[in-house]
Formats: sequence, structure tokens, C-alpha cells
Amino acid sequence: MESLFVIKIGGNIVDDENKLSSFLQSFAQLKGRKILIHGGGKVATKIGDKLGIESKYVDGRRITDADTIDVVTMVYGGLVNKKIVAKLQASGCNAIGVTGADANLIPATKRPVKEIDYGFVGDVKSSRLTVDSWQLLLNSGLTPVVAPLTHDGKGQILNTNADTMAQEVAKVLSTVYNVELIYSFEKAGVLLDANDDATVIATINPSSYQQMKAEQKIFAGMIPKLDNAFAALNSGVKKVIIGKAESLSELITGASGTSIVNE
Amino acid sequence: MESLFVIKIGGNIVDDENKLSSFLQSFAQLKGRKILIHGGGKVATKIGDKLGIESKYVDGRRITDADTIDVVTMVYGGLVNKKIVAKLQASGCNAIGVTGADANLIPATKRPVKEIDYGFVGDVKSSRLTVDSWQLLLNSGLTPVVAPLTHDGKGQILNTNADTMAQEVAKVLSTVYNVELIYSFEKAGVLLDANDDATVIATINPSSYQQMKAEQKIFAGMIPKLDNAFAALNSGVKKVIIGKAESLSELITGASGTSIVNE
Repeated sequence: MESLFVIKIGGNIVDDENKLSSFLQSFAQLKGRKILIHGGGKVATKIGDKLGIESKYVDGRRITDADTIDVVTMVYGGLVNKKIVAKLQASGCNAIGVTGADANLIPATKRPVKEIDYGFVGDVKSSRLTVDSWQLLLNSGLTPVVAPLTHDGKGQILNTNADTMAQEVAKVLSTVYNVELIYSFEKAGVLLDANDDATVIATINPSSYQQMKAEQKIFAGMIPKLDNAFAALNSGVKKVIIGKAESLSELITGASGTSIVNE
Repeated sequence: MESLFVIKIGGNIVDDENKLSSFLQSFAQLKGRKILIHGGGKVATKIGDKLGIESKYVDGRRITDADTIDVVTMVYGGLVNKKIVAKLQASGCNAIGVTGADANLIPATKRPVKEIDYGFVGDVKSSRLTVDSWQLLLNSGLTPVVAPLTHDGKGQILNTNADTMAQEVAKVLSTVYNVELIYSFEKAGVLLDANDDATVIATINPSSYQQMKAEQKIFAGMIPKLDNAFAALNSGVKKVIIGKAESLSELITGASGTSIVNE
């Protein structure tokens, strides 16, 4: 099987023009098949504020109402996505900017209303997610750049978590490619001390993870990410790497970041 | 050669939700290869106004400054484009929303500053426009939905006239497909009386065009459109049709609108 990198960059990288440019240069140089999935960043909130659209929260959870879905569609799907595409094209990477609606790449359903009505938020419909459109683009030598938006198949765009999108895409594509899933953000990897990049853990496997959790050595905020990483490995993804966006090439060689492996 | 429809919808259709939906349903039903190029509509101006970004004009010509290019990138490339894609997907059309930057579909250069500095406005670089990326998408069964934006190959998105984009794309693709270029807008076609849809001219060829121009029978605003239509025909496009967006299927059969032909 051919190799494929599925790389997610966090919103705080998207917000920082210098970090983003440096990341995109490394990304453009990366050989072979690759997909970039970007978070939203704070620019949508800033533009929403300027447009007089209040950010709404219920029990601390952000709600995507009708005005907000328009703002995130504009900002994530338009401004952020196309700026990344133009920069990658300038670096010789044949990028194509998409959302989950384009080519029906990521079917989703509007999150069911239980205690909280999240509004226009999409949960990826794993059972309907297929490799077909992804393969068409990848086999054409294109590099998909994916904004954190999906659609419900009934004409509605939905706000969707970029981490989840990366994981779902990596999982389904691991049936046809050797997939390495990379979560790049502002930290050096999974850290023993959340404030000290020098305490990065180079490798985590299921038994070391259980032990570190039992000893409460892992920062609570990382646990959902790690649980997702192991779920991805159990679904066929070859390796999950977590680390600094600016160190992309070192993350791939294993010289930097945390590698999460099954053995 | 296979057939291909290159269809442009004007901004006023984009602004009218009912007309747009009705158009998109007809478009989705259209069989075979097709490309949709959409204008911007007034929503960018509205959102720019709300964001406190003044529309700037020099000698009556709109200027695209740094703030404005961000707004049109958001609105045309994000909001308008992705709404159209989601609706087409819901109607069974495998749409993929793009700009000229995506897959380097439409290379452009920033318009040179002469008497007027138009700002971030792109002129299509015909000599660099190739069929390759278009064919990859079309041969994959995808329907490109194109926002009126291009890029300069150096990382900058540029605001670009949708009519010109449609014409340039139709011209280059006529080397590999039998292309019909359709300009759909709010009028029934080329009219003898600009205010009376009943006065539509069914067919225009070069000699009847010269005659009507000499007799000043054609509304001045239509002349650049018609000149462009004949230029497209002279570059290999098979037929150019101008008519009402809501009558798309009749435009294609010739039951409605104006057909511009070489003979």
C-alpha cells in the first residue's frame, strides 16, 4: 500500500501568520500523498463579534446558530482555507481546498438535540464515509486542504470538530493506504509537565499509556486526544504522531514529538 | 469529443434564494459534464459594510483593497460557494466548490497599475491556463462550482470577473470538449427592448450582429457580452447561450434565450 499522511493543524497555528507560513513550507516539501485538515482559529469569533453576532454558550458549550454557521462557513471554508491553498500553490504543492460537503467527502448528520441543542454542528457519519472521492483527488496528485465543515446531505453545512474529522478520514483511508495521522499544534508533544516542552514523551504504547494514566502523569486535557489516537490505531491507522507544527519534518522522522503506537 | 456545459450565473441570482434554488435544481438534473461559475452578488458588500469596510471607487471603478479581498474571499469562496455545493449535493450532483487557486485551476496576474490601481484584482493568464486540472475533476465525475477568485501563483488571492473566467475556461476546454457556454442572468436573453422580455432575439450570428449594432437595436450594456461571446466562438466554443437562469433546461434545448452562433 502507498503511504498517506493525514495532518491536522490546530487553530492557534492558523491564527499565527508566521507559524502558519513556516508550517506550510514544510508541508509543501513533504513528498507523497497527504491531506491537511485545519482548525478554525479565533478569526471567526473576531469577525462574528464585528458583525454583531454574539457567541452563544450553553453549559460552557459553544452553540452554532444560523448566523454562526454562516460566519464559520465564510471564515473556515473561505478565508482560512483559500489563504492556505494560495500559499501552498506558491510553494509548489497542488492543493485543493475543500469542506466535507465538496465531492461529498465527509457526510455528517446534525447532532441530535438531547440536553443541549448544539445547533448546526455535524457528527461525522462514519458508515457513509467512503474512500472514493478521496482517492479520486489523491490519485490525481492533488493535496486536499480541508476546512472543519461537513454537510447533512440535505443542503445544510455543519460546523465540525477538526480533530474528529482527521481521525475519521485517517481511519477510512487506512483501508487503502498506510496512514500516519499527525496532530500538530503549539506543544512539543504529549508532555509530563504541560508547561515544559522538554518533558515530551517520545513513544506511548497501550501499556505505557495505562500506567501513566494510573499514575496521573498525563495532563487531563490530553486524555481524549490519546484515547482517540488509540482508537485510530485499532481501526487500522499505522501511527499517530502528536507534536509541534513548526517541527513537521522532525515529527515524521520521529526526531520530535510523541509517537503513539500499538506495540 | 464529449460535451461540456460551462454555465455562469449572475450575482442577482445568487442573491435571490428562491431563484437560486430553482436554478440549482435544473442544473443538478442536467446530464453530462458541467461547470458552474457563480458571480458574487451583493452579500459581500453588505457584509463588508457591517464589518466597517468602506467600498472604495476610483472613477466609478470598484477597488479591491486588502480588507476587501478578505471579505470577497470569505463570502464568494466560502459562504456563497459552499451553500451552492451543499444544495447541489442534496440534489444528487457531485459538486466540488473551488476558486481559481484550487488545483491551480485559473492562474492569474494582479492587474497592472496604470491610470487606476484596482488593488487585488486578477486578470486571467490565458497562456498558463491548461486543461489538466479541469479534466482530472471532470473525468472523475465531479462538477466544479467556481467562485470568482483566482490567484497570482505567489500566494495572493485575487478578485476576478466571473464572466471573464467563464469565457476563458470555456475557450481552453473547447480544445478537449464540445463546449456550450451559457450566461444565465435575470433577463430572458438579448432583448430588442431592454425592459421587455418578449423581445428576445432567438439567434444572433456575426452578420445579424453587425446589422443590429449599426441600427443601434442592441442595448449598449449587452455589447461587451456579445463581443466576448463571438470571441469565445472564434476560439473554438461551439455555442454561446444567454438567457434566464430559471429557464436553464429551455436555454439548452434552444426553446428560450438567445443563441449566439458563428453561422
